Amino acid sequence: MRIGAIEAGGTKFICGIGNEQGVIQDRVSFPTERPERTLANVIAYFKDKQVEAIGIGSFGPLNIDPESPYYGYITSTPKPGWGNYPLLNTLKNEFDVPYGWDTDVNAAAYGEAIWGAARGLDSCVYYTVGTGIGVGVYSEGKLIHGLVHPEGGHVLTRRHPQDEFAGHCPYHRDCLEGMAAGPAIEARWGRKGSELPADHPAWEIEAFYIGQAVSSVILMLSPKKVILGGGVMHQEQLFPLIRKEVLHNLNGYVQSDQLLAQIDAYIVPPGLGDNAGLAGALALGLKAVEQA
Amino acid sequence: MRIGAIEAGGTKFICGIGNEQGVIQDRVSFPTERPERTLANVIAYFKDKQVEAIGIGSFGPLNIDPESPYYGYITSTPKPGWGNYPLLNTLKNEFDVPYGWDTDVNAAAYGEAIWGAARGLDSCVYYTVGTGIGVGVYSEGKLIHGLVHPEGGHVLTRRHPQDEFAGHCPYHRDCLEGMAAGPAIEARWGRKGSELPADHPAWEIEAFYIGQAVSSVILMLSPKKVILGGGVMHQEQLFPLIRKEVLHNLNGYVQSDQLLAQIDAYIVPPGLGDNAGLAGALALGLKAVEQA
Repeated sequence: MRIGAIEAGGTKFICGIGNEQGVIQDRVSFPTERPERTLANVIAYFKDKQVEAIGIGSFGPLNIDPESPYYGYITSTPKPGWGNYPLLNTLKNEFDVPYGWDTDVNAAAYGEAIWGAARGLDSCVYYTVGTGIGVGVYSEGKLIHGLVHPEGGHVLTRRHPQDEFAGHCPYHRDCLEGMAAGPAIEARWGRKGSELPADHPAWEIEAFYIGQAVSSVILMLSPKKVILGGGVMHQEQLFPLIRKEVLHNLNGYVQSDQLLAQIDAYIVPPGLGDNAGLAGALALGLKAVEQA
Repeated sequence: MRIGAIEAGGTKFICGIGNEQGVIQDRVSFPTERPERTLANVIAYFKDKQVEAIGIGSFGPLNIDPESPYYGYITSTPKPGWGNYPLLNTLKNEFDVPYGWDTDVNAAAYGEAIWGAARGLDSCVYYTVGTGIGVGVYSEGKLIHGLVHPEGGHVLTRRHPQDEFAGHCPYHRDCLEGMAAGPAIEARWGRKGSELPADHPAWEIEAFYIGQAVSSVILMLSPKKVILGGGVMHQEQLFPLIRKEVLHNLNGYVQSDQLLAQIDAYIVPPGLGDNAGLAGALALGLKAVEQA
């Protein structure tokens, strides 16, 4: 099979072709400019590729309610030109194939459940920690949508006792994203996270916030795997710090060996690495073929 | 049809008989004593009732993993005699019928989705705020189980700026349950909540904590209805305070009319009132018949 995949990000669009084994055979990347221009690039890429379906994991917020007249739109983003933009319909007008359509993080969660770190499990939660913080939820074998879709990057958190940073979220100031996304790290320390040494106190504070969110999601949803991806999570020293924080927060309350004895295999980086998003979009495309 | 229903609570067991319309035709209640004695009462009640199935919503933590040898057990409760108690098997040995088995709060969420405030919706979250705080999650038409099952009463919360109460949870001290369950209200104010007037400052503080949890669950799971039940929620003045808190916390970020324009119909008491738990157990019993 030849399935098209689009990871539609706020910074770049990644397009690719893959098959039913999750192998990505080709990929290209464009900067995210105004939508007309970006979509012209996407359409040109797929023009002669003869794909059987296209899966799209997109930055949001999105409309993913098939009953809505605005299904397939990017909705209230402040990104110039992209607010209320009919991304899905623009592609449908060009390529008459089945489409998969979900948030970038739901796509990544799904890809990880099919081919990655949560392979064979019927639930996982996928966090991306980068320019923003997003959460995808796969539970009882289904991606969670609901009223809108999960926006778990914006939950309120307790403040680290030594942290006086005001917070960086324009909506909630010191929510999770406002305290722990890449721009918050940079604003707090005056340098990008990628320039801070691995033993910098920044990472303990970062792990405090991410660990708090992960503890809450374990209590709220009881996922069988927690996957932490995105640029900030390239700082591998964060993983042991986050696991320690989670065990500290839960304090033995959730009686599961996977937490108490095997947490190194429970809170993990994406099995698909930086392909998680594109492979997830591919998986959405495959699901669309099956359901067509 | 004649379906048996058991709401197995830490204080009392409610048993009843109902039909496929959700009508409860008979109900009795026993105090929760040692398990042998309590189950003897339950078994005596159902002895000549000739039920076609039995649904059980139980206090926990529980084992609800059908693959586990401990499926049907109450697991790590400190309640004397009930730790590692095979509740489901004890009944199976007496009555050879299909069984539904889930947490009390998942049962209530399910009952509300079938016959109550979330009727016709494919998702809702059910909170009980009483002696403890529990959360049931119904999402994409399924009850959420996962690694163990949701235990959302124990999420960490921000502290109300005027609240100096230390917290009442033996595991997490000042988690949601530690700050906002009935015993926390009583310990904070020296009187039971039911004895405090409706304009007492206790309720603003209570709404602060419950509202914070509800905001997080909306961001994390995007449920189509949030249902707040349990003894503490009999204080009806809490509902407008909680709705206000939720809107304040979300600050317009989640663009949904159901939140922004119709929150009075979005955060609601159980449609089934104090029958939510028993009707939920009945619904689990009906599902067991369908799946048998």
